[in-house]
Amino acid sequence: MDVHTQFDWQKGFLLDFSAKDGLSKGVHSTKRALSQMKNMYADAEAFDKAVAAGDPLVYEFYELGAPESAGDLAFGTSIVYPGKVGDEYFMTKGHFHTVLETAEVYYTFSGEGFMLMENPEGDVQLISMMPENVVYVPKRYAHRSINTGKVPLVSFFTFRGDAGHNYATIETKGYRKLVVEGSDGRPVMIDNPRWHEI
Amino acid sequence: MDVHTQFDWQKGFLLDFSAKDGLSKGVHSTKRALSQMKNMYADAEAFDKAVAAGDPLVYEFYELGAPESAGDLAFGTSIVYPGKVGDEYFMTKGHFHTVLETAEVYYTFSGEGFMLMENPEGDVQLISMMPENVVYVPKRYAHRSINTGKVPLVSFFTFRGDAGHNYATIETKGYRKLVVEGSDGRPVMIDNPRWHEI
Repeated sequence: MDVHTQFDWQKGFLLDFSAKDGLSKGVHSTKRALSQMKNMYADAEAFDKAVAAGDPLVYEFYELGAPESAGDLAFGTSIVYPGKVGDEYFMTKGHFHTVLETAEVYYTFSGEGFMLMENPEGDVQLISMMPENVVYVPKRYAHRSINTGKVPLVSFFTFRGDAGHNYATIETKGYRKLVVEGSDGRPVMIDNPRWHEI
Repeated sequence: MDVHTQFDWQKGFLLDFSAKDGLSKGVHSTKRALSQMKNMYADAEAFDKAVAAGDPLVYEFYELGAPESAGDLAFGTSIVYPGKVGDEYFMTKGHFHTVLETAEVYYTFSGEGFMLMENPEGDVQLISMMPENVVYVPKRYAHRSINTGKVPLVSFFTFRGDAGHNYATIETKGYRKLVVEGSDGRPVMIDNPRWHEI
């Protein structure tokens, strides 16, 4: 985790994020290689093979160290690279907010894909991510972005400073649904065969 | 005020905002003509003349009717058009948040200008707005965006759903500082001759 402490959250500051590739010249990103996503893709054999063949960078994003207060806002970009593990598209780990009742806003700069969301009661929502469109991720929904295209899926996110990230629930249970490439070459949402109640 | 109620803030939704002109095809903007900003520009004569000569559109922005809850987020674009009243650049009214301890994030798509901010104790911060850069507007600071360029200043903002807008303080007292075109043709920040404690 690269947390940055040089910002003045009390008096304001300026920070660059490219609308093309999503990267910042001013700060380092947090990178997630495929090997850091063990058990998150359905096809374990394809996963092991891809890790052995070079362990690709699946996504990166920014953690700026916003104050963990309800009045502050965390923000940054997320870049999910194109690729698949078996027939499952590259995606972020996804997480609930620790403060469950907090929303998140994503503005997509480029690329195409989906925001896959589910709440603790099992309601699932799948919303397209497309350039120059916002996805509103409501309170109480775990969220994961999935790149179903050929170029990086680049978006800009904002959420409450104290929201926090609960990755453990998703890492343990998985998501109820997966987005995979169907036999016609187009994305389709299916049940996750490895999902289980804890 | 155009408040939109067609969105599902509980289950999420998708909404377009052009990264070029900032406009949405899906919703109507709220428009501010110069005549709606009486007493906000220092040069009253130039103001009256510009209103009489056609009352230009100074800025527009989006109000989507986000739930007024601390867990939701309001978002949209702001478009400040280029122009001047006397030597003072076109700008937004500016406001404190009603819930003073809430921040705001602005990502600038295009144009150039400044975010002028002041807190109740009188501290003033001036941060550049430039394409592909975020301005972090901290808690407790009134904020106004000012277009010092030749093209629209287009940005995307996010803030807490319950933050609210307190325009009255600024409408009554004004800002402590103004940004005007200096004798060398470049923007300069000066004291507001009409500012007064209430």
